Amino acid sequence: MSNLMEIIKSRRSTRAFKSELPPREQIMQLIEAAEWAPPGMGKCLWHFTVIYNAEKSLALARAVAEADNCGPDYNFYGAPVNIIISYQRDEHHAFVDSASAMENLLLMATALGLGSCWINQIRECCDVPRVRALLTEYGVPEDHIVICSAAIGYIAKETPAKPRKEGRVTFVE
Amino acid sequence: MSNLMEIIKSRRSTRAFKSELPPREQIMQLIEAAEWAPPGMGKCLWHFTVIYNAEKSLALARAVAEADNCGPDYNFYGAPVNIIISYQRDEHHAFVDSASAMENLLLMATALGLGSCWINQIRECCDVPRVRALLTEYGVPEDHIVICSAAIGYIAKETPAKPRKEGRVTFVE
Repeated sequence: MSNLMEIIKSRRSTRAFKSELPPREQIMQLIEAAEWAPPGMGKCLWHFTVIYNAEKSLALARAVAEADNCGPDYNFYGAPVNIIISYQRDEHHAFVDSASAMENLLLMATALGLGSCWINQIRECCDVPRVRALLTEYGVPEDHIVICSAAIGYIAKETPAKPRKEGRVTFVE
Repeated sequence: MSNLMEIIKSRRSTRAFKSELPPREQIMQLIEAAEWAPPGMGKCLWHFTVIYNAEKSLALARAVAEADNCGPDYNFYGAPVNIIISYQRDEHHAFVDSASAMENLLLMATALGLGSCWINQIRECCDVPRVRALLTEYGVPEDHIVICSAAIGYIAKETPAKPRKEGRVTFVE
């Protein structure tokens, strides 16, 4: 088995993080990995907003929870870092480009021993005024929609692997 | 630099393939990598259709070219293998789930020394009758839409790296 396959299979959705910030250098490696994803038509109309501050991450979680009815305890699982991938509004490749960048980012986090969890909730409510105000404050371009984000930090509790579902492949010779 | 970063940065969109089929075992490793992507809500409503036959891949390219006005020479760059990722129609996470699976697949192809190219065109025309008829013949579920596909094979001509665009990161402390 290649090293890559081990990393791919080791990635988990961490749902309990420690409060300490990982080194800034590691966070920048996550962004570097994400930027090397294959953008459709080579356009790269994405933007990466790194919230490297537990208090600011929590403030965003609270705004999202209120806008998207996630419940009062919603806190991005206590992760001190949140990385938002946004994309210019109404662009055809926004979802696939951003998601492939996110997968690179999550794999790199796994390779570095960091926990990560793909967060979809901000996408649903990025235009709700209170959420948008925070996004703008944090640097998300105003003509962008949020496609996805990642909670990042040290793992407080390991997540067990889920078995993959069978029978989803057709092989034509 | 970790091995993973090297793989991520070595991935290219191959646009000239040799006609020989790579070993079936390698193709199944690509699928295995794809299946370990993180599906939203753990739903895994994707399907992987592997066209492991140069003639059948070309037949699909021709149908797509006609439906999507790609020109008469459109042939998936001569790749003998095409892997289609489809997803149950009208599902919220279809695009992000499929794209993260595709990124795993492309990285694994890179790690194995195979060429790959993300192909978006089938998505545009998967419901055009002539295209849909072939997709159904090849095993794409009828209630699925195609999100993306990959041309896969041995590299006939290397693609140079493109520099990444700067200034797309905001870091908030």
